[in-house]
Amino acid sequence: VPEFLITLTTDFGLESPYVAAMKGALLSVNHSVRLIDLSHQIPAQDIRFAAFFLAASVPYYPAGTLHVVVVDPGVGTDRAILYVEVAGQRLLTPDNGCLTRIFETMGPPTTLIRVQEPHFWREVVSDTFNGRDIFAPVAGHLSLGVKPSKLGPIVKEWVTLEIPKPVTTSRGVQGEVLFVDHFGNLITNIPASSAQRRPNALTVGNRLLHRFAWVRTYGEAKIGQLALLVSSVGNLEVAVVQGDAAKRLGAGVGTPVDVGFAD
Amino acid sequence: VPEFLITLTTDFGLESPYVAAMKGALLSVNHSVRLIDLSHQIPAQDIRFAAFFLAASVPYYPAGTLHVVVVDPGVGTDRAILYVEVAGQRLLTPDNGCLTRIFETMGPPTTLIRVQEPHFWREVVSDTFNGRDIFAPVAGHLSLGVKPSKLGPIVKEWVTLEIPKPVTTSRGVQGEVLFVDHFGNLITNIPASSAQRRPNALTVGNRLLHRFAWVRTYGEAKIGQLALLVSSVGNLEVAVVQGDAAKRLGAGVGTPVDVGFAD
Amino acid sequence: VPEFLITLTTDFGLESPYVAAMKGALLSVNHSVRLIDLSHQIPAQDIRFAAFFLAASVPYYPAGTLHVVVVDPGVGTDRAILYVEVAGQRLLTPDNGCLTRIFETMGPPTTLIRVQEPHFWREVVSDTFNGRDIFAPVAGHLSLGVKPSKLGPIVKEWVTLEIPKPVTTSRGVQGEVLFVDHFGNLITNIPASSAQRRPNALTVGNRLLHRFAWVRTYGEAKIGQLALLVSSVGNLEVAVVQGDAAKRLGAGVGTPVDVGFAD
Repeated sequence: VPEFLITLTTDFGLESPYVAAMKGALLSVNHSVRLIDLSHQIPAQDIRFAAFFLAASVPYYPAGTLHVVVVDPGVGTDRAILYVEVAGQRLLTPDNGCLTRIFETMGPPTTLIRVQEPHFWREVVSDTFNGRDIFAPVAGHLSLGVKPSKLGPIVKEWVTLEIPKPVTTSRGVQGEVLFVDHFGNLITNIPASSAQRRPNALTVGNRLLHRFAWVRTYGEAKIGQLALLVSSVGNLEVAVVQGDAAKRLGAGVGTPVDVGFAD
Repeated sequence: VPEFLITLTTDFGLESPYVAAMKGALLSVNHSVRLIDLSHQIPAQDIRFAAFFLAASVPYYPAGTLHVVVVDPGVGTDRAILYVEVAGQRLLTPDNGCLTRIFETMGPPTTLIRVQEPHFWREVVSDTFNGRDIFAPVAGHLSLGVKPSKLGPIVKEWVTLEIPKPVTTSRGVQGEVLFVDHFGNLITNIPASSAQRRPNALTVGNRLLHRFAWVRTYGEAKIGQLALLVSSVGNLEVAVVQGDAAKRLGAGVGTPVDVGFAD
Repeated sequence: VPEFLITLTTDFGLESPYVAAMKGALLSVNHSVRLIDLSHQIPAQDIRFAAFFLAASVPYYPAGTLHVVVVDPGVGTDRAILYVEVAGQRLLTPDNGCLTRIFETMGPPTTLIRVQEPHFWREVVSDTFNGRDIFAPVAGHLSLGVKPSKLGPIVKEWVTLEIPKPVTTSRGVQGEVLFVDHFGNLITNIPASSAQRRPNALTVGNRLLHRFAWVRTYGEAKIGQLALLVSSVGNLEVAVVQGDAAKRLGAGVGTPVDVGFAD
């Protein structure tokens, strides 16, 4: 029997016992499953961030991996829990839009099931902690070979987030910061394919930045220099080499970013 | 041979090499053991927090799991290290009270051994890092099938923490904040069973809160609303929906919480 | 087939999808490898810290473990990527000096290969994320038994960091803070072997500290007391018992530390 991989993504942090309890509840169903922590530092209740995070990581996993995602401000309400198959990956998530970018980039789900059969849950279900009481045991049972069709009915609809799209202008493209990474790099929603010509103008928030380096990688610019480059997720990125662009520019998620191109 | 599960709980943080060294020392004894990180973010030297954390996570693990806990301000002194069996779980911890709540909720230990046989330790033991030099190798040897009775003598006494108990008053119940979670929710020491009637008065610290929602789950109140509910650990919890109750109310561990009930 | 252990050390943090993507890229090459997180909280681009961290953790691992280290400010430039064997450990790291202390303490590398054969990389390699596109798949292939000699040519030179050495003075020894741990303890670069006589004078930065306890372990001094002791990494350490020495003394990495000894 090959080992079964389950990844965990939550906004629980690690100062609380929630991740620990969830892992226990999962291992109690299947002692042999292999758990991979993706992150427990998704910003609290930030579904849009989760959507970005998942699209930037899930596609790299081997086919058949089960990704358990608990960023779930609607816990205990009538929001659905979904079991999803898409492009060989399997996910268990609240139906709150956190898969929006996955579906955009990997295609629509090939299987979509509403998880509602309590037989696979813990006997007592807390209204504030479905991660431990529903997601974990359901993931455990799936890893033991339970057929997804046993979990509940097939559904055809799902919640989609509105994610801001970049706009083409006469001079270039207008987008915004999608995500600030751990280094303070600003990852925008502007696809690299927009930059067919050399960028020669950059505005972040209300700062028109005259001097920046258009580079292939950080090391091509000097330490402390402002740089524009293609991020590893395929979008344009504003960085300060070995510095923190978010701090330097006072920018964050949602800050408008304008890029102009040479003729 | 089934795989052996060992969980790790420390206050070492992940910016230091201590967790990494400890995992290595353990894997060097048994290469095949499976390590599960519970948390390395227990607040520094906070035994009371560890006691809460363990009681909220350990019971969910499969029987036979070995939980290694190193929150150990007394490292290198004559405080004992204990091997404990309780309700099917196994633990290796300093004898400093961090099991107080486990014993309260899971019952007294069925086996209690003072770990003092250096044969199973690293050859050189640092006086400041028993996690690497004693806990890790002992856990490794246990996972290889070493009988706990080889580790040292059976003992009958252990250190117990004083944990504040809620007090019933004429109008309701008086407790305090036991724990602030990653979301800023205030988990109190007041058991849910206290709330047989509808709570109609709430005081946190010296703030008398006239308006709060008594709900089953976060989603039943509005975003930003103050809510009182039953937490996933079974106690009353004060929350701000999609907000941070600890910040809003200026509350932390030990802040008094009073709940009054309708007649 | 014994399971193959791979450890991961990065400065990516866990708020970003980079660690998650890297694990996926690795598991996609070898689904059965066992991943051990050492830390993803190495301070951003801090090669000197990484050098300290690795020397304090890598030696504790079982022989044959592969350590993947991505603290890589030079990503995408012509800095080399090295496959290294040293004292039974195997490492995959940028050639930027992060192995300096490993080589100091464990000896020079017995094998050193420049990783440059793209056959073992992801097909498309991002100039800003070699962790996902080169390090992860190469580690995966090594775990499947690919011979290191297939990865590229043997090399004989590597980058070395200048690491400050302590200086012996007439009254004692002059060093500096090498590392501040999670507890605020100041680990210096002064080896314990310097303290053949009893320390009787301590200066941290420009503070001459008249009163400190020279102890074997934290528990020998009182809570809140300043203590000098031998750290678990073998150097002198300045601590405040159950407190934060870095905060109390306003000290950080590089702060000078002077220790004088009794005659």
